[in-house]
Amino acid sequence: MDQARAYSAASATSPLQPDTIQRRATTDTDVQIEILFCGVCHSDLHTVRNDWASFMPTVYPVVPGHEIVGRVTAVGPAVTRYAPGDLVGVGCLVDSDHTCAACQADREQFCPGGVFTYNSPDRHLGGVTYGGYSESIVVDERFVLRVPKNLDLAGVAPLLCAGITTYSPLRHWKVEAGQKVGVVGLGGLGHMGVKFARAFGAHVVVFTTSPAKAEDALRLGAHEVVDSRDPDAMAAHAGTFNFILDTVSAQHDLNAYLNLLTLDGNLTLVGAPNEPLPVASFALLFGRRSLSGSLIGGIAETQEMLDFCGEHGITADVEVIPIQQINEAYERMLRSDVKYRFSIDMASLRAG
Amino acid sequence: MDQARAYSAASATSPLQPDTIQRRATTDTDVQIEILFCGVCHSDLHTVRNDWASFMPTVYPVVPGHEIVGRVTAVGPAVTRYAPGDLVGVGCLVDSDHTCAACQADREQFCPGGVFTYNSPDRHLGGVTYGGYSESIVVDERFVLRVPKNLDLAGVAPLLCAGITTYSPLRHWKVEAGQKVGVVGLGGLGHMGVKFARAFGAHVVVFTTSPAKAEDALRLGAHEVVDSRDPDAMAAHAGTFNFILDTVSAQHDLNAYLNLLTLDGNLTLVGAPNEPLPVASFALLFGRRSLSGSLIGGIAETQEMLDFCGEHGITADVEVIPIQQINEAYERMLRSDVKYRFSIDMASLRAG
Repeated sequence: MDQARAYSAASATSPLQPDTIQRRATTDTDVQIEILFCGVCHSDLHTVRNDWASFMPTVYPVVPGHEIVGRVTAVGPAVTRYAPGDLVGVGCLVDSDHTCAACQADREQFCPGGVFTYNSPDRHLGGVTYGGYSESIVVDERFVLRVPKNLDLAGVAPLLCAGITTYSPLRHWKVEAGQKVGVVGLGGLGHMGVKFARAFGAHVVVFTTSPAKAEDALRLGAHEVVDSRDPDAMAAHAGTFNFILDTVSAQHDLNAYLNLLTLDGNLTLVGAPNEPLPVASFALLFGRRSLSGSLIGGIAETQEMLDFCGEHGITADVEVIPIQQINEAYERMLRSDVKYRFSIDMASLRAG
Repeated sequence: MDQARAYSAASATSPLQPDTIQRRATTDTDVQIEILFCGVCHSDLHTVRNDWASFMPTVYPVVPGHEIVGRVTAVGPAVTRYAPGDLVGVGCLVDSDHTCAACQADREQFCPGGVFTYNSPDRHLGGVTYGGYSESIVVDERFVLRVPKNLDLAGVAPLLCAGITTYSPLRHWKVEAGQKVGVVGLGGLGHMGVKFARAFGAHVVVFTTSPAKAEDALRLGAHEVVDSRDPDAMAAHAGTFNFILDTVSAQHDLNAYLNLLTLDGNLTLVGAPNEPLPVASFALLFGRRSLSGSLIGGIAETQEMLDFCGEHGITADVEVIPIQQINEAYERMLRSDVKYRFSIDMASLRAG
C-alpha cells in the first residue's frame, strides 16, 4: 500500500482540506496513475455536502473527483493495454460486475454492481473509494481510458464526466447533419453539448436565461441563442427540434421545451433536479414525443468520445486552479461563476 | 345534401337528445356509410362537456362518436377501394392535408391540417364535423377502413379508437415475444392493450387499484396482476419491464412505474390527465428510461390493426346499448361501470 496526498472533507459542513489516504498496491490487472488534472463536477459538491443522502449517503472522509487525467507510473503484470508513461483518463466508474445485462451491453454505468470512483464500497481496501482530488490513483485497466496526445490536458479532464454525459445521449438519439438540436443551459454540461452537437453537424440552438451568455454560446458553436423567458421567441421554434439536451439541474418548465419538439422528437435530461418536474401529458401525446434521462456512458463509449475529441480537437473550456482554491471554486460553481469547468492542476498538491 | 337522424348535445350541460343533421352529398371521392355500431369513447364525453375548452373548445350542437362501423350505401365515381355493401370503419380522422411531413410518414394523426370526425371545421358544409352518433356519415375514401368479415361488429367499433390507440405504441416500441409488458389501468384502452400485448407474444402484467378486476385481467390475457397500491408487490418487479402502457387519465404516480422499467425501457401514456404529472429525473436517468405519449395512429396503421384483429379474432369486450341510453352510459362510464366499452346499436336510432 502507498500513501497519497489528497484533499478530503470530514463532514457535510467541513471544507475540503489536505489529507493523506491509502492507495492499494497494483494488483495483476491494475494501472497506477499519477494524476495531472482533475475536473470539478457538481456531483463532487453534492457528495461532499451529502445532498443525495436519501439514496447515496456520503461516507466521510470523502475525496471527490471523477474527471481524472494522468500519466501511468506502474502497471500490474497482467496489464496489456497500458505502459508507464501513457496518458490516461479515469471517469466516474472504476469497476463493475462484468456479468450483468448492462455490462454485457457495454453500459457499465447501469451495472447494479458498479463501483463509482468515489464514495462507493472499496472491494480492495474496505471503506469507500477515494477520487481524483489526489496525487495518484490505482484502477483496474478495464476502467482506464486512453487520452489522445494532441489535446490540452486541463481541458481533457472534464471530458471524463461532462463530456461523456453529453456525448452519449447525442449519439444514442442519433443526432446528425440536417437536424435541429437544442441545448438548455450553458454550463459545464451545456457547453460540451454545444460542441458535440455542432461537431455532429446539427443546427444548434442554445436556450438560456442569461442573455449575457449569447455571444459565448455562438463562440462555442451555437448557430442561434434563444432567451427561454421570451414566449414569442420560444413560440417561433414550436414543433421544430429533433432533439433537445436539457442540462439544467434546477426546477424549470419542461413542457415549454417538449412543445418545441417535432414528430418523434426527444428531450433528454442530463441534469438532476431534486424536485420532480411537472410533465403535461398532452405535450407528449401530440407528436409522439419522448422524455428521457441519460447518465454518463459506458467505458467503450467513453473511449470513442475521447478518440472523437482527439480527431476534432475538442476539449472543455476550463479555468485552471490550484487545489488550495477548491473551496472557493465550489462557492463560485454554485453561482455559475465559471466558464465552464474548473480543472485542478494537481502539481499544486505536490507543491503544497 | 341528405338529412340524417343523430343524437346531439346543445351545450356543455345539456343531455344528448335526438336531432336531425345534414350530411353532404357524396363527392367524387366520398363513401356514404350506413352506421351500424358506434363505440362510446371518453373523448366523446370530454367534448360534450367542453372539458378541453382551453385548447379544443366545443362548438354546439355537437354530435360525438369516432368508433364507427357500418356498411357502404353509395360511393362517388372516383372511389376505387369500396363498393356498396362493403363493411367499413371510420375512426378519429376524416381528412388531413396529405402534404405535411406527418402525412408523408403515414402519421395523419399529427397533421396540423387534420380534420377530426367531430368538432373539427367542416370543409364541405361549413360549421363543424358531426360524428358517429348518427344513422349515416359521408367520408373521403382515404379515411375509410376495411373491416374484416369474421368479427362481431359491435366489438369492432371500439377498435377504431381504443384499439388503434393501444396497438400503435405497442408496435412502435416493438413489443414482441420474450418481453415483459405492463398495462396500467383496465378500462376501454387497457383491456385492448392486454389483448394486443398478449397477441404479440409478451409476458403481460396488469396494474390495477381494483383487485376485483384481477380475474377479468387474466381472462383477457394477462399473465399476472399487480395491485399498484402494494409497495412490496411493486418492488418485486423493479427494473424488469421492457414497456409499460399507461392508460390512466387521472393523476397518478408515474415514478412508481418508471422505476419498474429495465434498461432503455419505455413508458407510454395514452391517457390524458388534465393536471401535469410529476416526473423524478432520477427515475429516467438510471437506466436511460424514457416516457412518451402516443395518440391513435395513422390510417395505414389502423388498417394493419384491423387486419391483425381479423387474423387473431380480436375485438373489444362491449356492452351493447340502444342510443336512448347514452346519457346513462356517460354516467356509468364516469364510474368505470362498463366492461369495457359501450357500443351503440344504431338500429335503435332508426327504430326510435
